[in-house]
Amino acid sequence: MSLKEVALGVDIGGTNTKLGFVDQDGVCLADMSIPTGEDDADKYLPRLYRAVDKLMLPLRDKIKIVGIGIGVPNGNYYKGTVEMPTNLQWSDYVPLAQWIEDHYKLPCRLTNDANAAALGEMKFGVAKGMKNFVMITLGTGLGSGFVVDGKLAYGHDGFAGELGHVVVNPNGRMCGCGKKGCLETYVSATGIRRTVYKLLADHTEESEMRRISFEDLDASMITDSATRGDKIAIEAFEYTGRILGMKLADVMAILSPEAFILFGGLTRAQDYLFEPTRRYMEQFMMPIFRNKVKLLTSGLTGANTAVLGAAALIWHELENMPLQS
Amino acid sequence: MSLKEVALGVDIGGTNTKLGFVDQDGVCLADMSIPTGEDDADKYLPRLYRAVDKLMLPLRDKIKIVGIGIGVPNGNYYKGTVEMPTNLQWSDYVPLAQWIEDHYKLPCRLTNDANAAALGEMKFGVAKGMKNFVMITLGTGLGSGFVVDGKLAYGHDGFAGELGHVVVNPNGRMCGCGKKGCLETYVSATGIRRTVYKLLADHTEESEMRRISFEDLDASMITDSATRGDKIAIEAFEYTGRILGMKLADVMAILSPEAFILFGGLTRAQDYLFEPTRRYMEQFMMPIFRNKVKLLTSGLTGANTAVLGAAALIWHELENMPLQS
Repeated sequence: MSLKEVALGVDIGGTNTKLGFVDQDGVCLADMSIPTGEDDADKYLPRLYRAVDKLMLPLRDKIKIVGIGIGVPNGNYYKGTVEMPTNLQWSDYVPLAQWIEDHYKLPCRLTNDANAAALGEMKFGVAKGMKNFVMITLGTGLGSGFVVDGKLAYGHDGFAGELGHVVVNPNGRMCGCGKKGCLETYVSATGIRRTVYKLLADHTEESEMRRISFEDLDASMITDSATRGDKIAIEAFEYTGRILGMKLADVMAILSPEAFILFGGLTRAQDYLFEPTRRYMEQFMMPIFRNKVKLLTSGLTGANTAVLGAAALIWHELENMPLQS
Repeated sequence: MSLKEVALGVDIGGTNTKLGFVDQDGVCLADMSIPTGEDDADKYLPRLYRAVDKLMLPLRDKIKIVGIGIGVPNGNYYKGTVEMPTNLQWSDYVPLAQWIEDHYKLPCRLTNDANAAALGEMKFGVAKGMKNFVMITLGTGLGSGFVVDGKLAYGHDGFAGELGHVVVNPNGRMCGCGKKGCLETYVSATGIRRTVYKLLADHTEESEMRRISFEDLDASMITDSATRGDKIAIEAFEYTGRILGMKLADVMAILSPEAFILFGGLTRAQDYLFEPTRRYMEQFMMPIFRNKVKLLTSGLTGANTAVLGAAALIWHELENMPLQS
């Protein structure tokens, strides 16, 4: 029996690492999750390798890994390095792709997690056939991947796609990157939690969230509160949508994409988030661009979306050029 | 004697139209300028054709026009149309390329003036060999052209590159596009004039510009005043550089270009503009991007820069694919 070719997709997040084997049609044959932990990369990798072994065990006679695709914060596509990642406790410069290639003797490609997600949408999701779109992942931070004329924009240094760090307010909220007022301090799962606390401070309205600590509050609870008609929660989404909509209008002016694709836990809020985002985006848009761009949710459903994206990095390259480790 | 092949480059500005014949090496054999006027496009074109005839007259035995490249506000590259131009008194939808092709029986390509300038820099100027850079033209408005991975980004609808209309302040200055607080209302020849008047209102400092009317004041006079140590003029450049620097930092986060190339009358101010722009750009930049990007002035000197850019549209295409009208 011939072995099925799969890419190993690895999504390294600030909290968890997801991994899985994905075939060329975007079917995930097996996946799992491990804590990313607070070690440096050289301590983290042996744990990742053990997880891959465990995932491989029941499939070892059935699949053949053709390459390893990784989505990771501040991943540099050109160099295969992870540099100064804001949400990982790693050293400032980790040659991750090289280490993994040395271990597996297989080609390894990495990019930031949102770029990987963009490739996933283009190959397996709602962006099939699109040449110009922007992927936005709303998790702990705000990640983004820009596809321009059919290709991911990596920029001159390999780090393009950091929409989360455009300036909303130069005197605004402290950001993990060292600046103040970055977009992701407002628009992300963490950002909306900060917004709820600001609104609880500014207003006197009763809210069920007044009985929840900052640490305990998460984006799902804010969505649930909004569903139950909690005014602070609804206002928090309005506030978030205004800032996101304004920045999407800016991106429209610059790159005029066909679609913005939102992904991540915060999108579970559906129209609580999408309606104000769309309204403000159109309002702040130059008239020539109005009513043109689509605002979509990810077409990659299920727990292994990020893994599909990371794996797409390998499949995308295999289709466009021969991969060499 | 064989005829020298030239492209006719036409730059249609809010005030003047410049035209010239440019060979494949970027040499401008002849150029002239006519007022754009306040007619609609169908009245304007006969005047443009007469100007071309006049420019052609002494060269008619020496050159052969291979195509016509046009830089024009709100020019749609894909459709060859000019739609809702903010600084021209034209109808909302003008099929300009088609009309010109019908008249000359030659291929005509158009794009917005800053996109044309970007191609000019890539073909003849300081961006030779660069794959990722952003061209910014500071005239009556602020135009921009984004080169991503070696190609101009036209976006899904052909209108990409409107950096002048990203939002600086949603409650800010009225913009010609119908919105408020667009970047070009602050950063452009007109924008800095508005800034001077704001500063004259806010402060009590003596300034030679207090004796000049709003109508009479232009960007050159502000530069001259700065050179003579006028505090209001120097502060106006600081204010302008802060806003421009912040927005360039945003673009850096999104696309991570190798260079920003500034062009237009306002760049005559040199370090009065460049020093604060660079300082604030680095300050507002995500640490990972700091001290990487070049801030350059246009490499296309002389009066016919915009014409070179428009002509480059034809030469660029001829090198990449056969042109057909």
